[in-house]
Amino acid sequence: MIDFMSVIKERRSATKFIQDVVISQQELDDMFSLTKFAPSAFNLQHAHYLAVTDPARKEEIYEAANKQYKVKTASATILVLGDTKAYQQVGRLNEGLLNLGVLNKQEYDITVESTIQFYEKRGEIFQREEAIRNASLSAMQFMLIAKAKGWDTCPMIGFDPEAIRSLFNIPEQYIPVLLITLGKEDISSQRPRGYRKPISEFVTYNSF
Amino acid sequence: MIDFMSVIKERRSATKFIQDVVISQQELDDMFSLTKFAPSAFNLQHAHYLAVTDPARKEEIYEAANKQYKVKTASATILVLGDTKAYQQVGRLNEGLLNLGVLNKQEYDITVESTIQFYEKRGEIFQREEAIRNASLSAMQFMLIAKAKGWDTCPMIGFDPEAIRSLFNIPEQYIPVLLITLGKEDISSQRPRGYRKPISEFVTYNSF
Repeated sequence: MIDFMSVIKERRSATKFIQDVVISQQELDDMFSLTKFAPSAFNLQHAHYLAVTDPARKEEIYEAANKQYKVKTASATILVLGDTKAYQQVGRLNEGLLNLGVLNKQEYDITVESTIQFYEKRGEIFQREEAIRNASLSAMQFMLIAKAKGWDTCPMIGFDPEAIRSLFNIPEQYIPVLLITLGKEDISSQRPRGYRKPISEFVTYNSF
Repeated sequence: MIDFMSVIKERRSATKFIQDVVISQQELDDMFSLTKFAPSAFNLQHAHYLAVTDPARKEEIYEAANKQYKVKTASATILVLGDTKAYQQVGRLNEGLLNLGVLNKQEYDITVESTIQFYEKRGEIFQREEAIRNASLSAMQFMLIAKAKGWDTCPMIGFDPEAIRSLFNIPEQYIPVLLITLGKEDISSQRPRGYRKPISEFVTYNSF
């Protein structure tokens, strides 16, 4: 049994990883099998993970990520993508509920039509922001799960998204949302935890 | 002790809340005091929470949120905002580390200057997307903490952001990222959990 509050309190972004620590695909799959329960708008599951453990490929990401050393020394460097066209999958994603009889045909049709309308009416900027928003929800869940399983992570935004896109031939409909480096932190040179604002500076009640 | 994996597995988006369940500001503050440990780019802490427990104000949000019943019946309806200008606080946020001697003056100056440059060079769309990305990371952490403390949540995107902005006189630099309704779920009419894609559909290794 892993204490929830300890995971929340002890997860902090790794600044340096111990080199040559290998993570298996099975271990990563175990994390993703729990990550999938994160919520997403209309249950569209916008997040896609590209997990890179191959040293040569990590080296390429390193070049596209301002040569941040962590990208190379991490056991896995994980690109979190968001699908801007996730809403187009709404029919397929709800077929199971239709087949189970949880949704009748009319409810299914309404769900499909209204979801597509919701995204098409709001347009491309909204579709892009939805990809970022929902992939980020998923990414936070992933980082906490990783910590619970003994792995440290660092979310990173300092990379060239178009260079990353071309490295992996990522279709236009997916956008790079975050890089997450994952490994075992080398705590020999760990800094004190970053300052956090007091609650009164980021929470207000009933008015802004 | 609260089991981490149970929280991950048992948190699901509430579809209906038990009415008239009151949550105290202290209980919400306890959640936010843990939420603040969520990571953010450059530790800029872009997320701001506006927690609404006042029935009249909830009614106003309800009108701006497609009259979704949950907004009214939730114990708290929480607007998650993202600060597009969070990077302008980098000096203030790092003063503590300077005073502690963790950063020397030169490191402090480099941190401040490089962070401001990072955001200014990338421009307004990036600043807006950063607000969404980082507020969403924080929001996921909040929803898991709420679950661990016995509360159910539902993230919601079906609202008019400009109507919400004008209701609460929210300055332009903050953008509405999500609404989170929070309460005790009425599970009498609960549906089966939403379908989740198998790992092979949302995870790839070393290539897209």
